[in-house]
Amino acid sequence: MAAGKEVVEGMEWRIRVADGSSEALVPATGLAGKVWVGIEGILWGFALKVWMFFKRACAIGANDPRKVIHCLKVGLALALVSLFYFIKPLYDGVGGNSMWALMTVVLVFETTVGATLYKCINRVFATFLAGFLAVGVHWVACRSGETLEPYVVGASVFLLASAATFSRLIPTVKSLFDYGAMVFILTFSFVVVSGYRVDKLFDMARNRVSTIIIGTSLCILVIMFVCPIWSGQELHSLIVRNMDKLADSLDGCVTQYFNQSGECTNNLEEAGKKLQGYKCVLSSKASEESMANFARWEPSHGKFKFQHPWKQYVKIGSSMRGCAYCIEALNSCIGSENQASLIKKHVSKGCMKVSSSSSNAIRELAEIVKTMKKSSTIDSLVSEMNSAVQELQNDLKSLPGSWNRSTVREHKTLEVAWSEATPTVHFPVMEMIPVVSLACILIEISGQIEAMVDAVGELAKLAEFGVHEDKCKLSEMEEKNEGTVKALSSNPRFSEL
Amino acid sequence: MAAGKEVVEGMEWRIRVADGSSEALVPATGLAGKVWVGIEGILWGFALKVWMFFKRACAIGANDPRKVIHCLKVGLALALVSLFYFIKPLYDGVGGNSMWALMTVVLVFETTVGATLYKCINRVFATFLAGFLAVGVHWVACRSGETLEPYVVGASVFLLASAATFSRLIPTVKSLFDYGAMVFILTFSFVVVSGYRVDKLFDMARNRVSTIIIGTSLCILVIMFVCPIWSGQELHSLIVRNMDKLADSLDGCVTQYFNQSGECTNNLEEAGKKLQGYKCVLSSKASEESMANFARWEPSHGKFKFQHPWKQYVKIGSSMRGCAYCIEALNSCIGSENQASLIKKHVSKGCMKVSSSSSNAIRELAEIVKTMKKSSTIDSLVSEMNSAVQELQNDLKSLPGSWNRSTVREHKTLEVAWSEATPTVHFPVMEMIPVVSLACILIEISGQIEAMVDAVGELAKLAEFGVHEDKCKLSEMEEKNEGTVKALSSNPRFSEL
Repeated sequence: MAAGKEVVEGMEWRIRVADGSSEALVPATGLAGKVWVGIEGILWGFALKVWMFFKRACAIGANDPRKVIHCLKVGLALALVSLFYFIKPLYDGVGGNSMWALMTVVLVFETTVGATLYKCINRVFATFLAGFLAVGVHWVACRSGETLEPYVVGASVFLLASAATFSRLIPTVKSLFDYGAMVFILTFSFVVVSGYRVDKLFDMARNRVSTIIIGTSLCILVIMFVCPIWSGQELHSLIVRNMDKLADSLDGCVTQYFNQSGECTNNLEEAGKKLQGYKCVLSSKASEESMANFARWEPSHGKFKFQHPWKQYVKIGSSMRGCAYCIEALNSCIGSENQASLIKKHVSKGCMKVSSSSSNAIRELAEIVKTMKKSSTIDSLVSEMNSAVQELQNDLKSLPGSWNRSTVREHKTLEVAWSEATPTVHFPVMEMIPVVSLACILIEISGQIEAMVDAVGELAKLAEFGVHEDKCKLSEMEEKNEGTVKALSSNPRFSEL
Repeated sequence: MAAGKEVVEGMEWRIRVADGSSEALVPATGLAGKVWVGIEGILWGFALKVWMFFKRACAIGANDPRKVIHCLKVGLALALVSLFYFIKPLYDGVGGNSMWALMTVVLVFETTVGATLYKCINRVFATFLAGFLAVGVHWVACRSGETLEPYVVGASVFLLASAATFSRLIPTVKSLFDYGAMVFILTFSFVVVSGYRVDKLFDMARNRVSTIIIGTSLCILVIMFVCPIWSGQELHSLIVRNMDKLADSLDGCVTQYFNQSGECTNNLEEAGKKLQGYKCVLSSKASEESMANFARWEPSHGKFKFQHPWKQYVKIGSSMRGCAYCIEALNSCIGSENQASLIKKHVSKGCMKVSSSSSNAIRELAEIVKTMKKSSTIDSLVSEMNSAVQELQNDLKSLPGSWNRSTVREHKTLEVAWSEATPTVHFPVMEMIPVVSLACILIEISGQIEAMVDAVGELAKLAEFGVHEDKCKLSEMEEKNEGTVKALSSNPRFSEL
């Protein structure tokens, strides 16, 4: 069966490359010929698969060159640690225990600085602690007589390994010391059990500790000084990127619904991609949390200080997810139908205004996070958004009752059939539902954005963001020219500016 | 500062236990006394913290005894592997290389059978492959002369480590062979670099492979025969549990909004917990995927065959998340206000019917997945849900225009002030919005449930679910008595029953 499938693949492949070797298409006769064709087919199929795999791998590498750099860094670190084998004095210096350094490099080297530091620090401290404990237990076991010794050692391994494994299941310990607990179990059992067979246990423990320190130092040097990738920086960029995606999705979704994007239709695929951007926000919870976890271990780098409030980024992320859920609901509620109606026309301006002011506010938040400068425009954008929401609510309030024939006449472009008997216009509710839901969700989104503004404001406070020079001047000018001071002072969130 | 804080904590602690040792509250005089109080405070604070930690750990253990069993299993496996040190013939049998078996147990032992098998199989195959390659490279290096040897070895380590690291970044490789790639790098560099210093390289490689096989076999024995926890079973239960939570949340949310739960209010906390159940569904994506990944490696167990369609569970999970997003939107859209209105009263029956028929359908789906038996009632439940949706849509259609004074009079219980001038009733749209949105989202939820039904139907087909005996008889009786045959035959999804 499998071979048959491979043959088919092989045939297809040969047909594709037929211009190069046309005689391959001549059917072979006899058993030997058939077997040969079969084997050839399998080989071609395999080669094709390998070739496809390489092509995809190249695409991944070209897409994100930092991945390639990471791979080269791992190779470099391993080549460097090999020197402890190649250079005689170094090899003798660690008593022939270079293998621990090598192993440390393989196990500890991660993509980002934070993750590597977390593992290095955990590994060194856990090894120290376990080594001390193991030497202590070994001392007790030695004094308990030859028959009892294996029982004491075995019981201590059983108890401490169970306890350390249990500690890995406690959330607070897991987030900080998961790897450390594993290394603790490894080192403790290794040292204490070896003590039964090895004479110079203390030397062994010392050698293990020193080679692990060598391995971790080498890792730290390579990861920090050869094109470093910082968890914190990654988290920061992820949040900014996701905010922009949210704004694009929101804009795109509402614009598409009200069909005012005549110029956008020439690039449908890109528009569709933009619309789906919010899905990244929905699925980035786990990566945000792990990045924030690792970023805690990183020293000051770039714009970030050592104790940068990384936890706040997780909070911003979760407020963004609140917004993304709403966009998901928006998408599913307008996805089913898109027919023109009078009500749609009536509220379209209000909805468009809310969505554009909302996405402007999100973009400004992205800018604040990106530049790490407080911005005074966010207040005016938020109040703009709120007034747009108010307007939309007024539009909705005015829907039935206050409309009469003359209002209908204003919308002559739409063909609508209204009952002639009553003086006021009654809207069919089924027609209203999608539009009203959309408006309702838009209003909800503006609420979620306020939560985002709060979260970013909290970050600005915790991380002591500076004031944006240009924006400051701009807002001063605005203040003089247009007198928007009230809007700024009425919002207490960024009032410290 | 920190010491001061500890003292305060210590004081609190002492006050709480004051009945036991009242003289501790007498303030100490002099510098020595103050230092003593400080130290005592620190010690008490530390003891308190340790105590709290233990209490929390005990709570975690009591909450899920399987965690404790897992810890004991790790201890057991390590104690067993220690026998390779304690028993002389075993120790000599592996040439003093027992440490690799010990290390394998620590690194490979995971909570579930699937995860452990994945790591074991990866480790064994990667070690074999890397060992062969390393011996080959060593052979080439030896023949290239003494000066070139370190360069050949170093270059091979650099190249293969980089390539293997890169392969770990390709999604398909990562999901199946991530751990294998790491072990490959480790074994290859270890064996090939050791070849520079060790004479009997082949013996070393053979020893490493045999000890690793001993370690993995031991792990597999312990994990599979001592209270095994199967990834597949866990995934199965998680999906069933999450479905029930979805149904509870949906029911609770709508019932709370329409305030018909007089008997529910006596247990507010539990009701609140039920309402929030859907949040588990939102955040379980990562764990579902990893469980499905590990379950692939598991042999036949319980009701599940070796090639059970685990991927389909991930699809069901994602359709459930679609439903959970809607419930999130439902929650946020009704969370803000809960005032009684005429419209609310008008659609409440329809909404309640849709929500109860929807949650019944979800519960039936949970039952199908749980029992792994096809159910014929799901078709009638889905058609019931669809007719409830149709009714609700009719209710909504009939809202404005068709209502007149007499309809209003029927709802006398509510105090409403309507304008006396017009013969028909105009609803203020602002009052309508939350109700109409709720109805709209409920209709959307029913659509999402149909997607869930499809996903579960696909699972039933792939995993060849049997037919539920009792249900079959029940539905036959129903068929005879009430003649609901049409509803069943009209839905083609489960028509193979």
